[in-house]
Amino acid sequence: MPLVRIDMIRGRSPENIWAIADAVQRSLIDVLKIPERDRFQIVTQHDPDEIIALDAGLGFERTSGTVIVHIFSQRGRSTEDKQLAYRTLAQQLAEAGVDGKDLFVSYFENGPEDWSFADGRAQYIEGDLPIPGQADGDRPVTAHRSAGTASAPHHDVGEVVSLSVPAVRTASSCWLQQSFGTRWRPHAPRR
Amino acid sequence: MPLVRIDMIRGRSPENIWAIADAVQRSLIDVLKIPERDRFQIVTQHDPDEIIALDAGLGFERTSGTVIVHIFSQRGRSTEDKQLAYRTLAQQLAEAGVDGKDLFVSYFENGPEDWSFADGRAQYIEGDLPIPGQADGDRPVTAHRSAGTASAPHHDVGEVVSLSVPAVRTASSCWLQQSFGTRWRPHAPRR
Amino acid sequence: MPLVRIDMIRGRSPENIWAIADAVQRSLIDVLKIPERDRFQIVTQHDPDEIIALDAGLGFERTSGTVIVHIFSQRGRSTEDKQLAYRTLAQQLAEAGVDGKDLFVSYFENGPEDWSFADGRAQYIEGDLPIPGQADGDRPVTAHRSAGTASAPHHDVGEVVSLSVPAVRTASSCWLQQSFGTRWRPHAPRR
Repeated sequence: MPLVRIDMIRGRSPENIWAIADAVQRSLIDVLKIPERDRFQIVTQHDPDEIIALDAGLGFERTSGTVIVHIFSQRGRSTEDKQLAYRTLAQQLAEAGVDGKDLFVSYFENGPEDWSFADGRAQYIEGDLPIPGQADGDRPVTAHRSAGTASAPHHDVGEVVSLSVPAVRTASSCWLQQSFGTRWRPHAPRR
Repeated sequence: MPLVRIDMIRGRSPENIWAIADAVQRSLIDVLKIPERDRFQIVTQHDPDEIIALDAGLGFERTSGTVIVHIFSQRGRSTEDKQLAYRTLAQQLAEAGVDGKDLFVSYFENGPEDWSFADGRAQYIEGDLPIPGQADGDRPVTAHRSAGTASAPHHDVGEVVSLSVPAVRTASSCWLQQSFGTRWRPHAPRR
Repeated sequence: MPLVRIDMIRGRSPENIWAIADAVQRSLIDVLKIPERDRFQIVTQHDPDEIIALDAGLGFERTSGTVIVHIFSQRGRSTEDKQLAYRTLAQQLAEAGVDGKDLFVSYFENGPEDWSFADGRAQYIEGDLPIPGQADGDRPVTAHRSAGTASAPHHDVGEVVSLSVPAVRTASSCWLQQSFGTRWRPHAPRR
């Protein structure tokens, strides 16, 4: 469910862009415990002049390798979860050649009623998908509110656990192979 | 007022892109009862590798025709309204050749003070525009809060109704002609 | 910290795009009192058909010079602050050749825990940066909540004031020179 917009300056190889997208997804799986196939990423490449990212007064220099990770996800993550997510993003992206100084992250939240994955259904509301985070005693506020009166067949906490895939910590190449085989497109994976 | 970002893989014809944008707008008019000319859409076309949209574990395949509809709008819509909006989007987009499996929607909310349509005015706050949804007994939370003390000439519920255009269900070509004639640009419509 | 997405139709000169980005940043510094180097902007240029921005029923015409300013920032600004920000944006952008009729602004909010500027740190939470707006008696809601129990070394109100740079109202060329010298990239400024 997180919809992640990844903006960068043009010039990276397709392989490197894939490595970056993979690293972002791996981080969110590891920390936020999202399902492996809960992957929605939009990469936009820009001319050098189109991204301006200074240092917010922190006193460091960025390079043309700046990567903006704009995460849109559901409410319910604690500040600690988010801090861990940022740290993990920095670690994983370093392996994809993105320096920590070049990583900017911004996070925006909505509720379970704000997502439709396909077919015009609101899968979290209509019971097709468990609401993330509920297995962690970390229930989204919105879900809390509606839980009292909801008659929709929400999955319970146990189901959340069983449906969530375990955090994937395979080598990068395995991950790539894995994700390349199951992309939005039925074509053969690149390379 | 909804600002809608529509992301897709490059390769569709201009006519098809217009049909998609029209279908999105028609859906929001039908369901959310926004005014017809309350249309703000940004289409971004991407290389095939730049959009990754898996199935969130739901067990289906997407194609290169995946369309991401990222809606930014005002608070105040019920979960039922949103569910109906997603269903309508799927129906209308199917007519524009977008399979239900290829439609991903994400919805984010703000308040009436968060919009300026032109001239640096906050039209909802300064009384130039009625706050959407107030005619439906579906008042945005933010509007509620400020309503008690607001001295700005907010329109009342009756005016909202009179200003809202009726849902448009004309044939696609009529719609296109209609919207082409009044776009952001004074040039002649394409085709 | 505001992350600002600026969308426009292709065809402006690089110098004009820079003037627009500068005007946006100057406005936010002037009104929202963000630090000068708190600058994060993503410009995306589009084909003419890719941006549709009607008039929301207000009765005016836009041109191909339409500029969409999509601001993502932290909670804590009053409606009055936002109104002043829109007015200032219109004034400053007029100097960059953007007509008031062509300026569309939308504002979305999150909290101090939702930002990482570099190195995977949550700088507002971990005490590297003061939380904006706290010096104005205009404390963000989220910060309020965590303030009672926070053990992190948050800066206090006095420091906020001392760290904020004074509003910059220099001539455009000075501003450009200033910002060009300290961009994301260590290369020489253009021109």
